[in-house]
Amino acid sequence: MSRFTHRALKKVGSSPGTLVHVGERKLDKVRLSVMHYTADSLTERTIDEVEEGLDLVKEGTTTWLNIDGTHDVALMENIGRRQGIHPLTLEDVLNTTQRPKSEVFDDYLFVVLKMLRYDTDEESIASEQISLILGENILISFQEAAGDVFEPVRERIRKGKGRIRGFGCDYLTYALIDAIVDHYFVILDHVGRRLEQLEEGIDNHPDAGLLDEIHAVRRELIYLRKQVWPLRDIISLLLKEESSFFSDTTRLFIRDVYDHTIQTIDTIESFRDILSGLQDLYLSIISNRMNEVMKVLTVIATIFIPVTFIAGIYGMNFTHMPELEWRWGYPLFWIVVVAVVVGMIFFFRKKRWL
Amino acid sequence: MSRFTHRALKKVGSSPGTLVHVGERKLDKVRLSVMHYTADSLTERTIDEVEEGLDLVKEGTTTWLNIDGTHDVALMENIGRRQGIHPLTLEDVLNTTQRPKSEVFDDYLFVVLKMLRYDTDEESIASEQISLILGENILISFQEAAGDVFEPVRERIRKGKGRIRGFGCDYLTYALIDAIVDHYFVILDHVGRRLEQLEEGIDNHPDAGLLDEIHAVRRELIYLRKQVWPLRDIISLLLKEESSFFSDTTRLFIRDVYDHTIQTIDTIESFRDILSGLQDLYLSIISNRMNEVMKVLTVIATIFIPVTFIAGIYGMNFTHMPELEWRWGYPLFWIVVVAVVVGMIFFFRKKRWL
Amino acid sequence: MSRFTHRALKKVGSSPGTLVHVGERKLDKVRLSVMHYTADSLTERTIDEVEEGLDLVKEGTTTWLNIDGTHDVALMENIGRRQGIHPLTLEDVLNTTQRPKSEVFDDYLFVVLKMLRYDTDEESIASEQISLILGENILISFQEAAGDVFEPVRERIRKGKGRIRGFGCDYLTYALIDAIVDHYFVILDHVGRRLEQLEEGIDNHPDAGLLDEIHAVRRELIYLRKQVWPLRDIISLLLKEESSFFSDTTRLFIRDVYDHTIQTIDTIESFRDILSGLQDLYLSIISNRMNEVMKVLTVIATIFIPVTFIAGIYGMNFTHMPELEWRWGYPLFWIVVVAVVVGMIFFFRKKRWL
Amino acid sequence: MSRFTHRALKKVGSSPGTLVHVGERKLDKVRLSVMHYTADSLTERTIDEVEEGLDLVKEGTTTWLNIDGTHDVALMENIGRRQGIHPLTLEDVLNTTQRPKSEVFDDYLFVVLKMLRYDTDEESIASEQISLILGENILISFQEAAGDVFEPVRERIRKGKGRIRGFGCDYLTYALIDAIVDHYFVILDHVGRRLEQLEEGIDNHPDAGLLDEIHAVRRELIYLRKQVWPLRDIISLLLKEESSFFSDTTRLFIRDVYDHTIQTIDTIESFRDILSGLQDLYLSIISNRMNEVMKVLTVIATIFIPVTFIAGIYGMNFTHMPELEWRWGYPLFWIVVVAVVVGMIFFFRKKRWL
Amino acid sequence: MSRFTHRALKKVGSSPGTLVHVGERKLDKVRLSVMHYTADSLTERTIDEVEEGLDLVKEGTTTWLNIDGTHDVALMENIGRRQGIHPLTLEDVLNTTQRPKSEVFDDYLFVVLKMLRYDTDEESIASEQISLILGENILISFQEAAGDVFEPVRERIRKGKGRIRGFGCDYLTYALIDAIVDHYFVILDHVGRRLEQLEEGIDNHPDAGLLDEIHAVRRELIYLRKQVWPLRDIISLLLKEESSFFSDTTRLFIRDVYDHTIQTIDTIESFRDILSGLQDLYLSIISNRMNEVMKVLTVIATIFIPVTFIAGIYGMNFTHMPELEWRWGYPLFWIVVVAVVVGMIFFFRKKRWL
Ligand SMILES: [Mg+2]
Ligand SMILES: [Mg+2]
Ligand SMILES: [Mg+2]
Ligand SMILES: [Mg+2]
Ligand SMILES: [Mg+2]
Ligand SMILES: [Mg+2]
Ligand SMILES: [Mg+2]
Ligand SMILES: [Mg+2]
Ligand SMILES: [Mg+2]
Ligand SMILES: [Mg+2]
Ligand SMILES: [Mg+2]
Ligand SMILES: [Mg+2]
Ligand SMILES: [Mg+2]
Ligand SMILES: [Mg+2]
Ligand SMILES: [Mg+2]
Ligand SMILES: [Mg+2]
Ligand SMILES: [Mg+2]
Ligand SMILES: [Mg+2]
Ligand SMILES: [Mg+2]
Ligand SMILES: [Mg+2]
Ligand SMILES: [Mg+2]
Ligand SMILES: [Mg+2]
Ligand SMILES: [Mg+2]
Ligand SMILES: [Mg+2]
Ligand SMILES: [Mg+2]
Ligand SMILES: [Mg+2]
Ligand SMILES: [Mg+2]
Ligand SMILES: [Mg+2]
Ligand SMILES: [Mg+2]
Ligand SMILES: [Mg+2]
Ligand SMILES: [Mg+2]
Repeated sequence: MSRFTHRALKKVGSSPGTLVHVGERKLDKVRLSVMHYTADSLTERTIDEVEEGLDLVKEGTTTWLNIDGTHDVALMENIGRRQGIHPLTLEDVLNTTQRPKSEVFDDYLFVVLKMLRYDTDEESIASEQISLILGENILISFQEAAGDVFEPVRERIRKGKGRIRGFGCDYLTYALIDAIVDHYFVILDHVGRRLEQLEEGIDNHPDAGLLDEIHAVRRELIYLRKQVWPLRDIISLLLKEESSFFSDTTRLFIRDVYDHTIQTIDTIESFRDILSGLQDLYLSIISNRMNEVMKVLTVIATIFIPVTFIAGIYGMNFTHMPELEWRWGYPLFWIVVVAVVVGMIFFFRKKRWL
Repeated sequence: MSRFTHRALKKVGSSPGTLVHVGERKLDKVRLSVMHYTADSLTERTIDEVEEGLDLVKEGTTTWLNIDGTHDVALMENIGRRQGIHPLTLEDVLNTTQRPKSEVFDDYLFVVLKMLRYDTDEESIASEQISLILGENILISFQEAAGDVFEPVRERIRKGKGRIRGFGCDYLTYALIDAIVDHYFVILDHVGRRLEQLEEGIDNHPDAGLLDEIHAVRRELIYLRKQVWPLRDIISLLLKEESSFFSDTTRLFIRDVYDHTIQTIDTIESFRDILSGLQDLYLSIISNRMNEVMKVLTVIATIFIPVTFIAGIYGMNFTHMPELEWRWGYPLFWIVVVAVVVGMIFFFRKKRWL
Repeated sequence: MSRFTHRALKKVGSSPGTLVHVGERKLDKVRLSVMHYTADSLTERTIDEVEEGLDLVKEGTTTWLNIDGTHDVALMENIGRRQGIHPLTLEDVLNTTQRPKSEVFDDYLFVVLKMLRYDTDEESIASEQISLILGENILISFQEAAGDVFEPVRERIRKGKGRIRGFGCDYLTYALIDAIVDHYFVILDHVGRRLEQLEEGIDNHPDAGLLDEIHAVRRELIYLRKQVWPLRDIISLLLKEESSFFSDTTRLFIRDVYDHTIQTIDTIESFRDILSGLQDLYLSIISNRMNEVMKVLTVIATIFIPVTFIAGIYGMNFTHMPELEWRWGYPLFWIVVVAVVVGMIFFFRKKRWL
Repeated sequence: MSRFTHRALKKVGSSPGTLVHVGERKLDKVRLSVMHYTADSLTERTIDEVEEGLDLVKEGTTTWLNIDGTHDVALMENIGRRQGIHPLTLEDVLNTTQRPKSEVFDDYLFVVLKMLRYDTDEESIASEQISLILGENILISFQEAAGDVFEPVRERIRKGKGRIRGFGCDYLTYALIDAIVDHYFVILDHVGRRLEQLEEGIDNHPDAGLLDEIHAVRRELIYLRKQVWPLRDIISLLLKEESSFFSDTTRLFIRDVYDHTIQTIDTIESFRDILSGLQDLYLSIISNRMNEVMKVLTVIATIFIPVTFIAGIYGMNFTHMPELEWRWGYPLFWIVVVAVVVGMIFFFRKKRWL
Repeated sequence: MSRFTHRALKKVGSSPGTLVHVGERKLDKVRLSVMHYTADSLTERTIDEVEEGLDLVKEGTTTWLNIDGTHDVALMENIGRRQGIHPLTLEDVLNTTQRPKSEVFDDYLFVVLKMLRYDTDEESIASEQISLILGENILISFQEAAGDVFEPVRERIRKGKGRIRGFGCDYLTYALIDAIVDHYFVILDHVGRRLEQLEEGIDNHPDAGLLDEIHAVRRELIYLRKQVWPLRDIISLLLKEESSFFSDTTRLFIRDVYDHTIQTIDTIESFRDILSGLQDLYLSIISNRMNEVMKVLTVIATIFIPVTFIAGIYGMNFTHMPELEWRWGYPLFWIVVVAVVVGMIFFFRKKRWL
């Protein structure tokens, strides 16, 4: 359950806005990189001091400062001071268990969401928190660790492909959110495949192992749902907020990513429905099988129990048992046995058990 | 599950508005056809170049350009440029896994929905995405493949039947949506018939095969629901949008198709309820049967096990067993056996098992 | 399922507003009747031509034209032309599978609802569609067949009882809707009685037949729900609509019928809850019984199986079996058997199976 | 089910506002009583004619007219005429199956709700309908029968305790509603106790009788819910209504009773959840027991069936059975038997059945 | 169930605003303490008379008066009189079963919520009601007993850490609510651990004891939910209320605690889902085991019952049984037995029972 509650207990009772890193420390050293571009020019480099990035910010250009690793509290405070970021925002950036949300401040817009990737080894969803702070001519992105799903966006910036170089920071913010949401479809595709395997498994060998798999997929869907539902409100807010963080042009694109979010949510709900149906199906098949087992037992036992009793009778050692000495006693015994068996079979046929 | 998630993974990471065809390519060659009409005149023909159609557009006339197949990206870009269509719209047209939706742009109205047909061979719902772009004096419709449910509409245009020739593009848009929604009732009729067969099957031969059928129908209903629910919002938007894409006259007709959409949704929800009831009924019948099987086994076993024991006793070879030599030992044995059996039967009668 | 989907397929693809009768034709000949009244005067008669009725309409008087049977398309078109009724309204009147709804047009108000009656032979709800068109000084009602629940209203008009003669067409419209909604309580009373019988049946003889009854009642409730839920919106619309179809006086009465609608809906929901509880109860009782059957079998088998084995031992024919020749062998055998049986009984007592 | 539907069928078809008493007649004779008070004075008496009460009404004083029994139609009409009460209101007062509601009229405010008491003999909730009509300086309350939960309110008026004497009719209305809602907690306390007994019963002796109790409590909760939910809307309306029936001072108190209503609803929902959990628990325990029973049967049968077969073999009478004459045949038989039994026990241990 | 309904019955019927302590009396003597501070100064002490605290209140300073124990009615009335607190508020403070809520009065803001702590001995959630009254330059907090989760807040005040000393009463109110909500995560962490133990238990030894644990956790979640859901509305109200109890600066912090509340609610809902999944899993495992038990029984019984019958036949004592004298009778018997057993095993293999 830790995935649901690991909001570290060390935070409890601390002053709000206290900068304490909450979560697993996934990197040794914080890594800073910057992309600075206009329609015509591009600088991309790794930097040592955050000031190298912040100093690039200039009207008419776009600066994207990306920070891998949020455990360097001094660095975070430095950025907060330089950019006028509220301590509560910094606190949320450091808290890797933050619920996805978006908040408008006077000078910047703050978005937290979960970048999800499917860990095929563990057969479970791996999550990394991404925080975006959109200010004037600058976008700062925070990640828990190196590695992300933004490489295609960087590639488009490098090659000047699409409209990304010509548009500003708001479009870049959109592009990153879009990259994250696009990746949710990869997750859903994996989950969909597990549902297909489950369905096939239920058809072909509905054994006890499937129960664990049903349960595991349900857990994944509960987790996914918790991460994806807040996106609806986050992106609604971006669409509606009245300050001028987003141009009308970019807002059309945000409507597009909103559309994808709804589709993701719809698919999760459909998957839950399907999983619940598969569970019902599995349990019904188990139940049906038990029924069949019981019928076989009943048929065999019910046929043999009476005739075994008859055999038992003529195994008795009473001195006076006339049947034993009859000439046709033994053949008669067999006639009775056959009659009982045939009668039973008729009875079972009528009951449709055979 | 692919029906739910086959949003092609090749799209992930690409620039938004990148025109990539997503989905199965159902046609070799894109097929363009155009109907151009006023109340008094009609031209209908297949064309090779999209310009042939677009050049017909004129105030006071209606041009319906239909395109079967959306995989020709160059053609799509051409149309987009000529008609001022936003790249995101074109992207959605090409993505055959797009969620049904409607969007208002400055120059046009965009509607995507699913044309559903019942594939009686597969016993499943076949879906084709229809995109409608309603501009000034022109409606462009995009289909995945040849063949649609619009033939009656074309027939009405050809024969000048009804009000269609006299009204404009907005009424034509309505007419196509209406044709699609009307077809949902055909689908529901099929599903309703499967439910009836299920019900009959449960009454007459509740065997294990029905489980698969219950599960299959549930899957169909989950899919249907996912496609039909968004229609409610789509058509609400058409009813309420403030720009002048629809005349008040046409809006009355849209209210009619809204009504049908609600009816479709209501029916799907009722079907879900009924299916869930049928599943309960099926499982209860299975459970009842198991009960009956158990009772037969218990009655037979419980009657014969004690008397078999008695027979076993007198089959023993102890030297000193006085009963064996009694004159009336054997008849007495039978009296005891009959007494036990009769007692058991009384007991079972009291328990209402017989 | 046809009750849910029998929207005739012949409508699919036809021009909207095409007048085609959809549904079972329940009458040979359309029957027209008219009531024309003021506070002081009343004319009531059956008429042959619809004009006879429409010509009576006059400011300050109320004309109620009732039409039994809607399959005479020419007649419908005639009425539509004379009264300025929109083709879509006429289409809905003819379509006996129309979802209950109310719609405001410029010149008239249109209400469709279902008149429900309990068919005690079939033990199911019989439904007839009633369409009401409220115009200036005239109310036209359409029925599928002769016979309705309006007789008490007619009686009040004839006898000048209550306020009906003094008030106008809008009050008459209310009175008819009220008569229909009042009848829903009769239906609910019947369903309530079936639930009571079910409950009694479950207490006294929970056999398999009850399953079908549970399922049948559930089906009735699903159907009822589908017909009654839309009433809430219909009557809300009448309460709120801004044009002057209803006087403030009548609106107070509509608030009353709204109240009854909510009560109907609440009762249906409670019945669903109760039915679901009864189903749980039934299944639990079946499950409990199975448990009891199993216990009897287990007790009997477990007591006799070991002692039968012992008897089997001394039925063996080994040459060297010292026990067989012991003087007290046979009594000892009985002592062992009794000890085993008593031990078993103690064990079962401890387990509370006896 | 009659508690849910006993809206008497005699009302069906009658003119709206027709005064017909619906429900059980719980009193022989209507009983009228009046309290007339200011901050300084108090008159309290039983009266014969309603005019005696109505004549006391005076600006600056409060008159509370209480009527036990609503079956005297002439009396009701008299009150209606004198106080200008709408026939629909009177009709609702007489209909003891009225859904709880509040309605604002020009001259008065009308509230109907259910006074609930726990009938400890029947172990079910007894309900009495209370109607309140709040006019200018007068509150009229109608009850089905003598006896109510208002005695503490009367006591406060008599003793001039609290603020009740100084405040007006609106505060009195609040005080009565508060007394009724306070009593819901008594009901909930009883239901809570039954849930506790159920839980204890399930722990100690989960027998079949508990099923009926679970079902009975569920029925009570469904009924309670139906009566309590409407209160939320009733009291919201009182809080928000714009006319001047309630002073701002009293409105603060109404906010308090609203708070209690929400608490009642929350508790009912929690109880439903808990009951559903108890039902699951009960069924699981039954299921677990069955499992245990089956295991005992299986262990005993599986151990003895094979060894009984072996004994059966050496009970056969073949002429040529060498084992029978072996010197150590019989001891060997026992060795085999013990080996089989020990093997079986090992097997069951591994399976964790023992 | 008392935790849900112990709203003491002594309150029923009493005058609203009557000060009666409801709940367990957890302290002998009420304990008053006060913290009075500005950015530069701090006084903290225990006081005997409430006036000592109230007299400290001064523009530009913050006074926090904390009262442990609410059973001293005279004291409460005194505070109420001095601070102008509405009797209904005082009543709610005294009623320890009050539903969490916030209410705005003209002169103060009133918040009630539950401070939850996990009682590790009882393995259940311990709850204490906290009431906060935020007035001009003073915050009064009421507790049921000594001991709370506010120590870190006091520490911050003492050390002048964070912004707390510089901000006013509204920030202090926020800080206390934040401390309480932060503690909910500790509770959720405990519940999460129990879910993990449950899951592990189900995997390793799914015995009957787990049922009680599942039920116990469900009860905890129902209780938690009832206490936490109202927080959403409480904090929304604080965010939106228009009077000037909260500065804009503090409101940003309240948005932060709102965020935590939503996260708490989401986690509770996820836990409910997970618990329901675990219950399904547990029941399915039990069901699967029963199936396995039945199969073993069926296989053993079905193999031995027929061969035991055959042995029974040749144990019969008929004079004329030719097989008995056959030279190869006994070996033949074994051949038949082996054939039957092998046949059965093939049959079971085909059925996949072995
Ligand atoms: Mg935060
Ligand atoms: Mg935080
Ligand atoms: Mg990363
Ligand atoms: Mg995208
Ligand atoms: Mg599960
Ligand atoms: Mg299900
Ligand atoms: Mg798109
Ligand atoms: Mg897209
Ligand atoms: Mg096509
Ligand atoms: Mg249509
Ligand atoms: Mg299924
Ligand atoms: Mg069900
Ligand atoms: Mg229509
Ligand atoms: Mg239609
Ligand atoms: Mg009729
Ligand atoms: Mg009525
Ligand atoms: Mg059913
Ligand atoms: Mg249930
Ligand atoms: Mg009424
Ligand atoms: Mg009424
Ligand atoms: Mg009374
Ligand atoms: Mg109260
Ligand atoms: Mg029940
Ligand atoms: Mg259940
Ligand atoms: Mg209160
Ligand atoms: Mg109170
Ligand atoms: Mg405390
Ligand atoms: Mg906090
Ligand atoms: Mg439980
Ligand atoms: Mg459950
Ligand atoms: Mg479940």
